[in-house]
Amino acid sequence: MSVLELNAADQTVTVSASCSCAELYAALPPGLLPPVPPLELPGGVGGLVTRGGFGQLFFFSADVLGLTFHSPSGRRIQAGGRTVKNVQGYDLTRLFVGSFGALGELEQVTLRLRPGHWSAWTGPGGPEALEQLPAQARFGWLDRVVAPDLQLRVLFAGPVSSTVTGNATGAGTFADAGTFADAEPVTQVEDWSARFPRGLGVATGPAAQVQDARFGWADGGARPDVPPLFQRLAESL
Amino acid sequence: MSVLELNAADQTVTVSASCSCAELYAALPPGLLPPVPPLELPGGVGGLVTRGGFGQLFFFSADVLGLTFHSPSGRRIQAGGRTVKNVQGYDLTRLFVGSFGALGELEQVTLRLRPGHWSAWTGPGGPEALEQLPAQARFGWLDRVVAPDLQLRVLFAGPVSSTVTGNATGAGTFADAGTFADAEPVTQVEDWSARFPRGLGVATGPAAQVQDARFGWADGGARPDVPPLFQRLAESL
Repeated sequence: MSVLELNAADQTVTVSASCSCAELYAALPPGLLPPVPPLELPGGVGGLVTRGGFGQLFFFSADVLGLTFHSPSGRRIQAGGRTVKNVQGYDLTRLFVGSFGALGELEQVTLRLRPGHWSAWTGPGGPEALEQLPAQARFGWLDRVVAPDLQLRVLFAGPVSSTVTGNATGAGTFADAGTFADAEPVTQVEDWSARFPRGLGVATGPAAQVQDARFGWADGGARPDVPPLFQRLAESL
Repeated sequence: MSVLELNAADQTVTVSASCSCAELYAALPPGLLPPVPPLELPGGVGGLVTRGGFGQLFFFSADVLGLTFHSPSGRRIQAGGRTVKNVQGYDLTRLFVGSFGALGELEQVTLRLRPGHWSAWTGPGGPEALEQLPAQARFGWLDRVVAPDLQLRVLFAGPVSSTVTGNATGAGTFADAGTFADAEPVTQVEDWSARFPRGLGVATGPAAQVQDARFGWADGGARPDVPPLFQRLAESL
């Protein structure tokens, strides 16, 4: 069972760590979106949560409501919950998200869903454009591989109308791009797993095939170095 | 020095833990708002961060960019940073926020600022109304003391116009409330410190003088029980 529990009324979904993005998207009713883009990446949903998401322009871990993981010492730890409650404190959920496995192995995770349908815009762009996307953009990343020039991909959680202020040229980095008004509906999960046969990790420079607002990502790339204090904390769990 | 560094261009402010809310607000240029309401509560800004905020309807710790604290073993720990970067992972900031002092003593904190001016609405309301406020509401809480009936206070980060959909009666809990359109500008920090001479803590039932979406708060109330696993984690720092 990859999708363990879907609660469309409460807008939450609980999946096993091994759930693929395609399985997650296939289980959702139309009009509800998870906090992960429609991309198949190594490790499925669990991989995305462990790495802290991919391409998001919002505070990713706020949409991770709870999770269960097995600590380095073998303890099974349940953090957070399965409901959208603005309760924080004494919570290990945010500590686990983006910790690249340093705190142990993820078993399952509950994600918040939000209303919408993805519209995607693709065009030329650079790191500066990525930093200056309009607030309505939910995801954005640069792809260095699929075309001769850097490609900027932006996802909006709805049809892009005149309410999206500014356009990709606002940053002054790529003069020939149009506005985001020609963004097109996304109808399927794009499979990128074959691009990262050795796993998705962090890299810099030309090695980075894709880049989001946090990291450059590469096939077989490393995880960021774990600070000693964080390592001690992991060992205490 | 209570306000240590204000960066209006980057929309961040760094303050000492002892900074009062009034000092924080006095230091901000008009049109920039911190993630804490214009209320003086025990412990100032540091108290608010340690308790996980007050009354917020957004993900509070996402607006805490970084902090410095002294762990129970005496170590000085810097978590996060001073810039608005969507970088998460290996980060103790979220762990500290709302931990009620279990991880040690806060020294200073950097908060994200957002554009806006507070408009406040006050009227009758109950817990159900608090759960169903429109998305434009940034803060909301119930006050059991100032009037014979429960008072609902809602803060919006801008003039309330017809774009605020729904009204307080939407929850069906209090039929006589008006719409939020009569919200009024907030011009000063309300001093509540005299209401909590023994400190602000958590309580339930009649003891709770004010209640937000997370907790009932009372004069001299306790902190929530610290789970054993969290306690172990605190001792490792």
